[in-house]
Amino acid sequence: MDRNLPHLEVIGFDADDTLWENLPYFLEVEQQFSNLMKEVEPDRDFSKALYQTELQNMALYGYGVKAFTLSLIETAAKYCGGSLSSDIIERIISMGKGLLRHPVVLLKDVETVLHSLQGRYRCVLITKGDLMDQERKLKESGLQPLFHHIEILSNKRTDDYLRMIHRLEIHPDSFMMVGDSIKSDILPALEIGSQAVHIPFHTTWQYEIPEREFSDLSFHRIERLGQLLDLLK
Amino acid sequence: MDRNLPHLEVIGFDADDTLWENLPYFLEVEQQFSNLMKEVEPDRDFSKALYQTELQNMALYGYGVKAFTLSLIETAAKYCGGSLSSDIIERIISMGKGLLRHPVVLLKDVETVLHSLQGRYRCVLITKGDLMDQERKLKESGLQPLFHHIEILSNKRTDDYLRMIHRLEIHPDSFMMVGDSIKSDILPALEIGSQAVHIPFHTTWQYEIPEREFSDLSFHRIERLGQLLDLLK
Repeated sequence: MDRNLPHLEVIGFDADDTLWENLPYFLEVEQQFSNLMKEVEPDRDFSKALYQTELQNMALYGYGVKAFTLSLIETAAKYCGGSLSSDIIERIISMGKGLLRHPVVLLKDVETVLHSLQGRYRCVLITKGDLMDQERKLKESGLQPLFHHIEILSNKRTDDYLRMIHRLEIHPDSFMMVGDSIKSDILPALEIGSQAVHIPFHTTWQYEIPEREFSDLSFHRIERLGQLLDLLK
Repeated sequence: MDRNLPHLEVIGFDADDTLWENLPYFLEVEQQFSNLMKEVEPDRDFSKALYQTELQNMALYGYGVKAFTLSLIETAAKYCGGSLSSDIIERIISMGKGLLRHPVVLLKDVETVLHSLQGRYRCVLITKGDLMDQERKLKESGLQPLFHHIEILSNKRTDDYLRMIHRLEIHPDSFMMVGDSIKSDILPALEIGSQAVHIPFHTTWQYEIPEREFSDLSFHRIERLGQLLDLLK
């Protein structure tokens, strides 16, 4: 393995569902929202309606809890019509705030692995969520001293990774991305000529499902973060 | 002046109301919101009510258009009671989206100054707004090639500047901050031992009014960005 990574300097870690749980909390709120809406309009699929709103708002709002909360509210306003009440809006706002206050639950091996990488590589947390939310989670997680800094990308496409590599003033060869999303973490890292390590999470947001086949691509897949240390041996 | 800036390497520019107009558009939406709410409850001061909501949400939401829109909606839900309608919510969401789509209007001298600094300093855009929104404005402004990158801070306090200086791997001596806010751009930059240049904007958001006297501090004040070139001569 070492011969493939002659200059590895920086390891980028996706945060949500790579270091700590995230998607399950969003799915839980989506379920609460659907239940709330079913009181108003029992026959509509509100998960589907919400996803449509999220897709429409993606280019304008981007990712994160605030974007999600605004899409929840917009979906409610669109389908509730005359039945919309202050109570519904307040409950949705409160669901969103609950996500921003949710305790951080670290995934397996995270602390061990990050401790073990100290001094050998510069570890950077790379996210497309809200910076404030991710900083809060990093602080609560106790992992802050193990990361050089947070890189916040408005999106995780090839261009965003290239800009980051430019900011870090390193060569793409010297960078490895570790994350749970093929579409956001693996494919763009490979496209700019960096290494990539995929750690599947048990659930994938439908937006993160890749549109194309990727069986021809060369990247590492491990089951849990602990195996990264074997890869880097 | 040169003897004070022996190692100046990086100049940080605040974006909103330093490079381009911003606050006037928020104030315009606040006025539209007040007018909309006055139809429901004519005697309440909705600017004041909104600011209270914004203050309460600041630690959780941070800055930017999405945070502002959520606070508008929360204020409406709080005071409209049974009069809240889908129409009101949709109009507020649309006001927020209008801010995210607003054309960029550059302030005086911005292009000339940034062109003139090319090759002499690394220019960095420093903001606490939404990254996606600021990237959109930077792209639309045509100024993107003139900046090394965007630094997004969750806040603009001393700690945030220190973390940024650490990320940039420079000494505070080598950094100068240019902006319109005494509280967010000038005081924290001085506190970490960097230089600061204040360019007052004609309007200041009440949140940005400093709590303490600062007549004892040493920083530069210029009337328009063009004068920065004289300062750096």
